[in-house]
Amino acid sequence: MKEQSIKQPPPLENPINGRTSLQMYDLNVDEAVEEIRARGARRVVIQLPDGLKPLGFELCREIEAKTGVEVYLTSDPCYGACDLAWEAMNLLQAELTVHCGHAEIPHLNDGRTIYLEARSNVSIEKPLKEALKMVEGVRVGLLATVQHIHLLERASRILRKLGKEVYVGRAGGKLRYDGQVLGCDFTAATSISEKVDFYLVIAGGVFHAVGVEASTGKPAIAVDPYLGRAVKVSDRVEKLMKIRMATRGRMLEAKRIGVLVSLKPGQMRVGFARKIKSMLEREGKECVLIAGRELTGLNLNSFSEIDLFINTACPRIAWDDREGFMKPILNAEEAVSFLESKQKRLGIG
Amino acid sequence: MKEQSIKQPPPLENPINGRTSLQMYDLNVDEAVEEIRARGARRVVIQLPDGLKPLGFELCREIEAKTGVEVYLTSDPCYGACDLAWEAMNLLQAELTVHCGHAEIPHLNDGRTIYLEARSNVSIEKPLKEALKMVEGVRVGLLATVQHIHLLERASRILRKLGKEVYVGRAGGKLRYDGQVLGCDFTAATSISEKVDFYLVIAGGVFHAVGVEASTGKPAIAVDPYLGRAVKVSDRVEKLMKIRMATRGRMLEAKRIGVLVSLKPGQMRVGFARKIKSMLEREGKECVLIAGRELTGLNLNSFSEIDLFINTACPRIAWDDREGFMKPILNAEEAVSFLESKQKRLGIG
Repeated sequence: MKEQSIKQPPPLENPINGRTSLQMYDLNVDEAVEEIRARGARRVVIQLPDGLKPLGFELCREIEAKTGVEVYLTSDPCYGACDLAWEAMNLLQAELTVHCGHAEIPHLNDGRTIYLEARSNVSIEKPLKEALKMVEGVRVGLLATVQHIHLLERASRILRKLGKEVYVGRAGGKLRYDGQVLGCDFTAATSISEKVDFYLVIAGGVFHAVGVEASTGKPAIAVDPYLGRAVKVSDRVEKLMKIRMATRGRMLEAKRIGVLVSLKPGQMRVGFARKIKSMLEREGKECVLIAGRELTGLNLNSFSEIDLFINTACPRIAWDDREGFMKPILNAEEAVSFLESKQKRLGIG
Repeated sequence: MKEQSIKQPPPLENPINGRTSLQMYDLNVDEAVEEIRARGARRVVIQLPDGLKPLGFELCREIEAKTGVEVYLTSDPCYGACDLAWEAMNLLQAELTVHCGHAEIPHLNDGRTIYLEARSNVSIEKPLKEALKMVEGVRVGLLATVQHIHLLERASRILRKLGKEVYVGRAGGKLRYDGQVLGCDFTAATSISEKVDFYLVIAGGVFHAVGVEASTGKPAIAVDPYLGRAVKVSDRVEKLMKIRMATRGRMLEAKRIGVLVSLKPGQMRVGFARKIKSMLEREGKECVLIAGRELTGLNLNSFSEIDLFINTACPRIAWDDREGFMKPILNAEEAVSFLESKQKRLGIG
């Protein structure tokens, strides 16, 4: 850890505790209650990702009882701090949203959102030790999603006792905490990539570890506290890279391309979508702009005349949800770098 | 027909024709082009229900080519004229929406939406004759969804040749055309129920016919032009009635109730939801208000602490999509009439 102190959240007081084995989270209700009172809100929207919805009823009743405000739970999907309920807030004439489970993305906060982070209370000893057996090297890059960010100190201590050198990348960009990893922001990983031999990524599932290894080229191990196990992701990264290369190739033969624009506040990149459309039209492609809240195969597959989608929204759509799509889907950054390198090769870049 | 003339749409000029066997629709592109020009719009949103999405690419390209406006297709689900893309329009800073496939609901039109109706070009002779073999009586109530509304004249002629007396209910309420049927408006049916022996309902699927029979108590036959066949719906109506009675019963034992509010412009009934919440609280229930765009089992089942949902949005959610829900779901009107009759019985109504 090199004596640096990690920018970390305070412990919770009076949390609502998840009651099922799948939802092992603490939410700091009193923080929301105080903020609602301080701001004098009269109507509030509560937004929960799917994993926290089992806590919704209790949370809603408690806030209503303690503050007297009118509370609306939203049922629409919520995948991250970029997925804010501004529309619900406007339509319901609410003054405030209590957005649960994700850390604030600093530049996105419009001042009308309280971010109530969720802290997973599961243990990491076992998967952490399991992870160390899978990889060689002394210098560890340590990362976590926000649900487990409070475990970084503890994980560091364990790792140092085992003789490791621990590095935690600094917060910045879309990140609120040191060592935090987001599906669309791996800067805490890339910023320390020259110092480390491998990464340990504390998160549910393998998605974040895959992203870390793909972005840094260094081995990453997914340390999953829910399943209590560690997973090497090299095979998955290799597979993903092959699929992405192949999808880039499909762009060459595609005639009709749909450029996807998110209608979610923190994911909407209209200018970028327009730029890609122009680039593609210069290549002789026919393009349409497609805007949507939930950019899923379910909502997009019926556009059967389209050969390929290019995604300017959350990168997980093209990486993680790829299999729901009947047509190839490519992330915008990949498409642009591919087109630019092609145009450069042809001397027109 | 009693010599009345049916309020009917004009024929289409220069339509885009559906090209797959499943999407046999005509859309009047030139109507949209003229309106966009007349209004001087610079950015336009195109909204299509799932069945028309295969036409989206062509439609979008043609409008863009003919008007020079920037066009966005929306990919989000679109289930009716109540499901308007106001949010997309605002976020994309568009001046106009081209809403395809549904008839305007007169009181909902905010002046920024062009309704481009879709006309199915399939034939009805065969299912119409098949239908008449299934039911007795001379006096026919004739209804159609807007995709088939232009077939009412033709159907009337066929029926009169076969010796039937034909009645077509007048437009009103949410309806734009005489004889039109909506999933939430059966007034064209109920307004003529005393005059007719049975109904023929020209529509895809059986949902609208089920609603007509349930609302009027008279037999209704679904005349499905897509499948080219007629279907009696009495069994389905009986089953639906039983389920609805049973669900009303479940409300008595439910402790924790979620009252659903739609975030779709034409389906949002906040005041009604509040009223139901108060009524339920007087009955000793614990209630929360849940607001969402897509009120589906997928989005609501994770609220696992809730025993029962009461729906103030589109009635199809509780009738047609019921099976996606892990908990019972009841339409708000049913819940209110049940509670009111119970309170009346107890002398507190």
